[in-house]
Amino acid sequence: MEREHNLVPGDKLWKRFLYRIIYRSDTKLGKLFDVILLSLILVSTFIIMMESVPKLDKKFHVYFIISEWVISVFFTAEYWSRIAVLKNKKHYIFSFFGIIDFLSLVPFYLSFFFPVTKYFLIFRMLRMLRVFRVFNLLDFMNDGTVIVRALKNSSRKIYIFLLFLIIFSVIVGSLMFMVEGGRPGFETIPQSIYWAVVTVTTVGYGDVSPITPMGKFFAVILMLAGYSIIAVPTGIVTAEMRNKRQNLELICDRCGNEDIDDDARYCKQCGKKLA
Amino acid sequence: MEREHNLVPGDKLWKRFLYRIIYRSDTKLGKLFDVILLSLILVSTFIIMMESVPKLDKKFHVYFIISEWVISVFFTAEYWSRIAVLKNKKHYIFSFFGIIDFLSLVPFYLSFFFPVTKYFLIFRMLRMLRVFRVFNLLDFMNDGTVIVRALKNSSRKIYIFLLFLIIFSVIVGSLMFMVEGGRPGFETIPQSIYWAVVTVTTVGYGDVSPITPMGKFFAVILMLAGYSIIAVPTGIVTAEMRNKRQNLELICDRCGNEDIDDDARYCKQCGKKLA
Amino acid sequence: MEREHNLVPGDKLWKRFLYRIIYRSDTKLGKLFDVILLSLILVSTFIIMMESVPKLDKKFHVYFIISEWVISVFFTAEYWSRIAVLKNKKHYIFSFFGIIDFLSLVPFYLSFFFPVTKYFLIFRMLRMLRVFRVFNLLDFMNDGTVIVRALKNSSRKIYIFLLFLIIFSVIVGSLMFMVEGGRPGFETIPQSIYWAVVTVTTVGYGDVSPITPMGKFFAVILMLAGYSIIAVPTGIVTAEMRNKRQNLELICDRCGNEDIDDDARYCKQCGKKLA
Amino acid sequence: MEREHNLVPGDKLWKRFLYRIIYRSDTKLGKLFDVILLSLILVSTFIIMMESVPKLDKKFHVYFIISEWVISVFFTAEYWSRIAVLKNKKHYIFSFFGIIDFLSLVPFYLSFFFPVTKYFLIFRMLRMLRVFRVFNLLDFMNDGTVIVRALKNSSRKIYIFLLFLIIFSVIVGSLMFMVEGGRPGFETIPQSIYWAVVTVTTVGYGDVSPITPMGKFFAVILMLAGYSIIAVPTGIVTAEMRNKRQNLELICDRCGNEDIDDDARYCKQCGKKLA
Repeated sequence: MEREHNLVPGDKLWKRFLYRIIYRSDTKLGKLFDVILLSLILVSTFIIMMESVPKLDKKFHVYFIISEWVISVFFTAEYWSRIAVLKNKKHYIFSFFGIIDFLSLVPFYLSFFFPVTKYFLIFRMLRMLRVFRVFNLLDFMNDGTVIVRALKNSSRKIYIFLLFLIIFSVIVGSLMFMVEGGRPGFETIPQSIYWAVVTVTTVGYGDVSPITPMGKFFAVILMLAGYSIIAVPTGIVTAEMRNKRQNLELICDRCGNEDIDDDARYCKQCGKKLA
Repeated sequence: MEREHNLVPGDKLWKRFLYRIIYRSDTKLGKLFDVILLSLILVSTFIIMMESVPKLDKKFHVYFIISEWVISVFFTAEYWSRIAVLKNKKHYIFSFFGIIDFLSLVPFYLSFFFPVTKYFLIFRMLRMLRVFRVFNLLDFMNDGTVIVRALKNSSRKIYIFLLFLIIFSVIVGSLMFMVEGGRPGFETIPQSIYWAVVTVTTVGYGDVSPITPMGKFFAVILMLAGYSIIAVPTGIVTAEMRNKRQNLELICDRCGNEDIDDDARYCKQCGKKLA
Repeated sequence: MEREHNLVPGDKLWKRFLYRIIYRSDTKLGKLFDVILLSLILVSTFIIMMESVPKLDKKFHVYFIISEWVISVFFTAEYWSRIAVLKNKKHYIFSFFGIIDFLSLVPFYLSFFFPVTKYFLIFRMLRMLRVFRVFNLLDFMNDGTVIVRALKNSSRKIYIFLLFLIIFSVIVGSLMFMVEGGRPGFETIPQSIYWAVVTVTTVGYGDVSPITPMGKFFAVILMLAGYSIIAVPTGIVTAEMRNKRQNLELICDRCGNEDIDDDARYCKQCGKKLA
Repeated sequence: MEREHNLVPGDKLWKRFLYRIIYRSDTKLGKLFDVILLSLILVSTFIIMMESVPKLDKKFHVYFIISEWVISVFFTAEYWSRIAVLKNKKHYIFSFFGIIDFLSLVPFYLSFFFPVTKYFLIFRMLRMLRVFRVFNLLDFMNDGTVIVRALKNSSRKIYIFLLFLIIFSVIVGSLMFMVEGGRPGFETIPQSIYWAVVTVTTVGYGDVSPITPMGKFFAVILMLAGYSIIAVPTGIVTAEMRNKRQNLELICDRCGNEDIDDDARYCKQCGKKLA
């Protein structure tokens, strides 16, 4: 979710005017635009969800179609405006949100040429992600950034942890296939692995559960192990989140080091005295 | 749960006497009153619960009615006393607990004019919340305040996290609707989202679970993702809870040590008495 | 689980000899005694468990009875020895482990006069707790003490949290009784509360799950709330456990303050320089 | 998962050449070898999983056999090369990965003399563990080491915690056997213990769930207790993981500051360059 701060408006007056409304929220019109956008995204998502309920679709089919049309026309206009007002158009088109904006419009236009299938749905649902842009503009995301940064900083550790988890599940699943092999839910190794993941993550649907005493015994061991393992990702993120006590606004002006603790008086990378 | 410390008793002697019993717990009578109140709240809740069991209601119906009458009369008297002894009555009436007190009495009096329906229940159950007032008076809530404060301080981050979670669940639910679409439990998008939330929060009822190999594969990915995500709210609250232990404003003026605990009276670095 | 360090042996030589074997583990015989005790506890527990399996009980009934006899005689002898070698016998008899030792023997002797019922079982199972004493002696419990102490220090906060949780579950359960009322699993308020607890703790058996769309909607909100709440007890214990970085061996010899950080040079309570 | 850094290649040139390819990844050929190895491990695991699906095995049986042959021949060649190029061969053969390598090859050769049974599977699945070696070589495991180290440092505390948990489950299971005894899922104590573990770890399959009101009441208490207990392992690992961020051995020799991060080059308190 890269920031769009570095997009530059075109030279003409109307472009700069529209740019301020669309990409900024420091004017009344800009804020109004954001609120309308947010509402339309939520309404649009709500309609897509309701459309999928046969009973409701039968009753309100026409209204759903009409509102989808209205919303799609608005979003198309918005998409073109976003491109029109910019100097460097490619910068937006190939940005994260540019691609999201484009993808969420495609199904509507494709539906003129191809029969509507449920596979179009997921693309239209991507609109939901646009909520983050609006929230970002409304300056609501500072706290979100802390979370995202903590996750990003610990992402490598989380990948390793997931790797451990997957290999653990594969081996346990195979073991269980040997123990319970052939009984319902444990017919194949992939199914046994499915059970292992359901168990170790403590989801526990119960669609598959051990039947033999031996299987139950292994399951108990797995559950106790999983219960201890659950501590690991938590520990990773918590340890990372504590680094928030960094001074987020301070950057060393000699070496550019951004990792400065709240109580630091000298840059720990180059030794410069901090202001 | 705002404190009621700033309520002021009326001028007459009996008002100040009653005020001390009702709003304080520093006298024997005041403590007795709190204990009686606590017992009645618990008894009342217990009776409401038992009333809902047809077998018990049939057997003890008369007793339930009588005790509900007795308790309601007591609570009404208490409500009027609470108002009567105060100088600024509105302050209490529109406070959090004033509204709770009022709402939990309404169903009893409405039941004279309207047939009793189960929708009255939830209001009567609000009485449970009054337990916190009694505990607050009995000075049992200092630790509770720490929890509430930590939750309040991290509430914005938790909202953002919930937003992430909801959007994540909506998109995953839609994806699953495409994959498993039409199979029992995945007939509509809202139902698929229900499944996604049940899975990602690791509740895992099992009333809906993936059936096709493809669906199981997606479910496994979702579960592993959810297992990593679970760390985030924990990290947020833990990080917040830790900040409460130090006195953040105090600095030793001899050695400049900032790491001073809330309960410290001397600097642990140089031994200077703290102000 | 109070320590038994302050028990004093009697004067006679054999008492002091036995005392060292039974209550200490710093001699070879003492260690051997502990290991035998540990084995017998585990064997005894294992037999009780196997006895409850009809198929096994039928086959090995006689062996189970005999081994129960042998073990009970040994434990009785041990119990009497424990009392005999002490000067102040009451100190042991009414200690935590003294009561456990007594209770776990009672069912065996009662069974001579009354028919054996499954209600005796739970008392015999209490023997399991004696494992902790042996581990304590074998100096394996230092880390356990850290856990127990962290739990004890945060116990008040955990009680408050449980109170929140219970009141939350009661209100949510009542609400759900209104929404789903009468449908299987939501026939009465206590049953709805049972569902609420199963959901909010993310156990999610699935024996009761919401059926109506409205019920599912409420359930989703409850689950997301529960998912955020799960962070609270973790945060409490983690914050408390961090205090381990206290110097556990240091006590201020002027004011008796035990809460001394690892990096402290002066007592933060009375300002005395620490050794 | 001990490192293989201390293995020494033989004297001959081709041995040193091969050693660099097999045991190192600082040359292009070495990296290529690692990537091929990684691919073959993943392909091999995938094939074993697919083989267990009767439908797929019927269709592609010949291809599975052939690829298993090719892979086994490659792995055998690799195993012999690993031994051949070393000076001290035993060092590798009896190392963790040496044993894994050997065990994962055994079933293939045994299958010439004995009928293939599903019990061979688990050995072949051990190949998965070899992924860690490749990742280790590709220098991807630094973060993994942090996790492993934190788990190792807190392992004693986790064992104690598991001991608590097991004894708790056994006692609760016995209690539940008394309460629900004889009802489906609670026929024997071991089965009741299985239920207790499923509940306290919040897995909650739902294959066994309490039926009587009394049983549900006990289950609710167990769940609330389990919900508080879940905090303990998390607290343990988190507390341990935090200690890894600071350089615990480094002290600034000018100002005595001990709070020095692992990546710091200058003291953040006085600006002195660290050794």
